[in-house]
Amino acid sequence: MYLGDTARVPYGNKSPETVVRYSLACARFLLRHEVKIVLVACNTVSAHAISALADAVPVPVVGAVVPGARAAHAASKNGHIGVIGTLGTIQSGAYERALRGLNHGARISGQACPLLVPLAEEGWTQPEDILGAIARRYLGELRAKDPDIDTLVLGCTHYPLLRDGIARAAAAVFGRELAMVDSASAMAHAAGEALVAAGAVRREGAGALACHVTDASRLEELAPRFLGEPLASFALVDL
Amino acid sequence: MYLGDTARVPYGNKSPETVVRYSLACARFLLRHEVKIVLVACNTVSAHAISALADAVPVPVVGAVVPGARAAHAASKNGHIGVIGTLGTIQSGAYERALRGLNHGARISGQACPLLVPLAEEGWTQPEDILGAIARRYLGELRAKDPDIDTLVLGCTHYPLLRDGIARAAAAVFGRELAMVDSASAMAHAAGEALVAAGAVRREGAGALACHVTDASRLEELAPRFLGEPLASFALVDL
Repeated sequence: MYLGDTARVPYGNKSPETVVRYSLACARFLLRHEVKIVLVACNTVSAHAISALADAVPVPVVGAVVPGARAAHAASKNGHIGVIGTLGTIQSGAYERALRGLNHGARISGQACPLLVPLAEEGWTQPEDILGAIARRYLGELRAKDPDIDTLVLGCTHYPLLRDGIARAAAAVFGRELAMVDSASAMAHAAGEALVAAGAVRREGAGALACHVTDASRLEELAPRFLGEPLASFALVDL
Repeated sequence: MYLGDTARVPYGNKSPETVVRYSLACARFLLRHEVKIVLVACNTVSAHAISALADAVPVPVVGAVVPGARAAHAASKNGHIGVIGTLGTIQSGAYERALRGLNHGARISGQACPLLVPLAEEGWTQPEDILGAIARRYLGELRAKDPDIDTLVLGCTHYPLLRDGIARAAAAVFGRELAMVDSASAMAHAAGEALVAAGAVRREGAGALACHVTDASRLEELAPRFLGEPLASFALVDL
């Protein structure tokens, strides 16, 4: 059961109050379909609304921030960790809190990158040219906060599409390779562990994707970029 | 009475159905405050929802597309007109219909520029560097459709903030200056004319701005860029 609130995206610039309100509406829809676990596949929602969702939802809730922070903590050698994400994710301080819980001495620096989500949706994912210029500008601001960063968290589920361009820009700005941590992959692993812990792993037969969206605009263009294959079908829902 | 549906912006990528639904909710709010005219200060809403709004609203409704098309018709010497705007505005064909109504022989070419709104909101409005590279890429696609364009419509109320950068990029791509038409200014003039025609011009005392938004995030940062002065106060409303 996939639900994309495509009528109201992006969430990245919205206030915490709006994000919580919209996220609870999304969760209520999923619960009506008797899901056994809820994955919050958006860092902005994870940053602002994970507590509200955990309180409201009677099944396990897995977000992106805590798994992403754990992966960053494991990857960093010197504890200097950079986080890039939406304005909401960075302003929330959610990664900083999660990382300090793992390592009191960690030094966390965040950089909001509002242009990266529209850039990924536009499909301008080639590392050079415009993506490179934008990523170097944001990462230059991050380097000014802490030049010793050795690990960079892709703190937005859109950023894996821009991974090569961000990695090259980071190498150019910091003068060396940074360890790159993908919060989306980390969340997927954490979801697997949560299903095992809950004894809820499907034992037979392949699962199927039931895709629901609140607006079908651009879906045929955008869905394959994220799914890696064309979208067979979807249902339009009103939250 | 200003209402910004800041919780659900941007509208530029949403489907016509969603834009109509949200626009009618906005209009209902304004009508409860007994406005004497409704200005649709967004090209995407003007393109998708002007008929639905005119049907639903008992006072004059002035959008951006028809005034923008009139100004472009007046500015163009050869009838080759380019329109840049959101994906929704361009896909709607609204400018093309309006311009063909004024000049059957006009040749209209549209180019969606999804990155320009987030760029304006990020404040990266300097003509060179990233704005220049993005604008040249979009305008290069426009030139491929019609190299004889002599007039460019800024078919989005965000674009005047990027005007210098767009004008320079257009001169670089087309090899000559294009006439630039600002749909927002054209709409403001049309609104003045509509008030005169309705005998509804305020005769004494200065007006005042009552600003309402559905989400206050980034308001203190963004409002001055569009208003030209700090925002004195605002009210948060739930549509």
